[in-house]
Amino acid sequence: MTPPVPTAAGEGPLAIICGGGSLPFAVADAVMRRGRRVVLFPVRGWVDPQAVAPYPHHFVDLGRFVRFRRQAVESGCRDVVMIGTVLRPTLRQIRFDWESLRELPRIIRMFRGGDNHLLSILARILEERGFRFFGAHEVAPEILMPPGALGGRPPSGRDLADIARGIAVLAAMGPFDVGQAVVVANNHVLAVEAAEGTDGLLARIADLRGQGRVRAPVGSGVLVKAPKPAQDRRFDLPTIGPSTVAGASRAGLAGIAAVAGATIVAQPAQVGAAADAAGIFVAGIAEERAP
Amino acid sequence: MTPPVPTAAGEGPLAIICGGGSLPFAVADAVMRRGRRVVLFPVRGWVDPQAVAPYPHHFVDLGRFVRFRRQAVESGCRDVVMIGTVLRPTLRQIRFDWESLRELPRIIRMFRGGDNHLLSILARILEERGFRFFGAHEVAPEILMPPGALGGRPPSGRDLADIARGIAVLAAMGPFDVGQAVVVANNHVLAVEAAEGTDGLLARIADLRGQGRVRAPVGSGVLVKAPKPAQDRRFDLPTIGPSTVAGASRAGLAGIAAVAGATIVAQPAQVGAAADAAGIFVAGIAEERAP
Repeated sequence: MTPPVPTAAGEGPLAIICGGGSLPFAVADAVMRRGRRVVLFPVRGWVDPQAVAPYPHHFVDLGRFVRFRRQAVESGCRDVVMIGTVLRPTLRQIRFDWESLRELPRIIRMFRGGDNHLLSILARILEERGFRFFGAHEVAPEILMPPGALGGRPPSGRDLADIARGIAVLAAMGPFDVGQAVVVANNHVLAVEAAEGTDGLLARIADLRGQGRVRAPVGSGVLVKAPKPAQDRRFDLPTIGPSTVAGASRAGLAGIAAVAGATIVAQPAQVGAAADAAGIFVAGIAEERAP
Repeated sequence: MTPPVPTAAGEGPLAIICGGGSLPFAVADAVMRRGRRVVLFPVRGWVDPQAVAPYPHHFVDLGRFVRFRRQAVESGCRDVVMIGTVLRPTLRQIRFDWESLRELPRIIRMFRGGDNHLLSILARILEERGFRFFGAHEVAPEILMPPGALGGRPPSGRDLADIARGIAVLAAMGPFDVGQAVVVANNHVLAVEAAEGTDGLLARIADLRGQGRVRAPVGSGVLVKAPKPAQDRRFDLPTIGPSTVAGASRAGLAGIAAVAGATIVAQPAQVGAAADAAGIFVAGIAEERAP
């Protein structure tokens, strides 16, 4: 399905549809280092205008396909990456232009499914109009979690058992488009992520610990992140960053495990340094661990 | 494995090991209505001494098997039911008597597994000493969720689809001793219960709605509860009560679905009345819905 990854040169600039967070800029910088130009399309309301100011950019609104198409074509962009946080709006919050309105039945259908479903249909609509979609990790592989430890600490034997259990739980939930993260401590599943997101998940563990409702002592337990088996990895890879390390530390966990090559790491050097400062591990685990 | 359910007469009084909440008293009253005497063994710290005062009772401490055995034998009790809330303590919080200390390797093992595991091993240790364990629903079947609606509202077609999806997610997670509840809205899994419990799960949905992070409109979405496939139903059936209705209402859900005959309903009349007052449904669904 996915066309070959475009070479850095000769394909025109890369369009990056940007949500919130620092990741879109990390991707833009990495693509530019590889010698390809970029044009950013920050989603209005999600991106700081000052942060995007140094890059060529055009703000976009959800539900306004016409303008995005025109500006992308005028900028010479055929290849598109979507990256960054956009909380799923309600249908009522979106103002549609005429071209988007024509797609309304499909858009309504896409709002019925999970998040993965939504982004895939959005991409399919634009692909029918001649754009090619890539995963951020395809155009900037340096943003992917490497195998092994980021920082100085490895997981213990007990941590490895918790990681294996977490991977198994995530695999079992795969068909349901639920979450990409669980917390397991001493073989006990403490929390499963769904709509609250990873930061909310970790805050919950910190709360439960504060209430004395987590038996596992501080310094045990692992946040395990893995992509959903059925998801389109171009749009929805799990992501960790310095805030994940801070959340895991507040939750009293031993560390974070994420599938190497299938997890985006915002700012890997800072993640490793933050992990060492907090005394926790951050480990890239082999995908084959998943059953 | 389970012996036949004892008849009301001729077996001596029933020992009820009581945790928190009103359920132990509902069970005690139901057993007495059936003509059998009861002796309550409230776990110290979890049961209000005033509430237990009208019943024959002896307070017990976790980790003090000798005293429980002596008092149960002196009271003529051979049959035992465990019912009510006891948050799992840490091993360090338990003071053990000599007989419990002899069982320490098994007790430590039981603290490694899930909650279901813990209660089963506790029961096995006491069964080896001649006691017989029953589920509260076996001695007082009137505490079980009936099929159909409690209160005046049935689930809609969309609710039934959400219920089917919730049952499927719970079945997939069954092998991992995770939770007994999920919230599904418009086919989207919003939350999965683990250590936070059902009240925490519902509070989370209310929070996410407050933050605009739930797309499904107020009045849609279902709390689905089902027993874990592998669990010993004598000890750990899912439970709903008036507080579950209040939580589901605050979370803006359409209703609550629980497996009929495999869910304990504290105060069914109050649950039905509360559901009608809140405008939500409470439905007992057939177990065969589970795949």
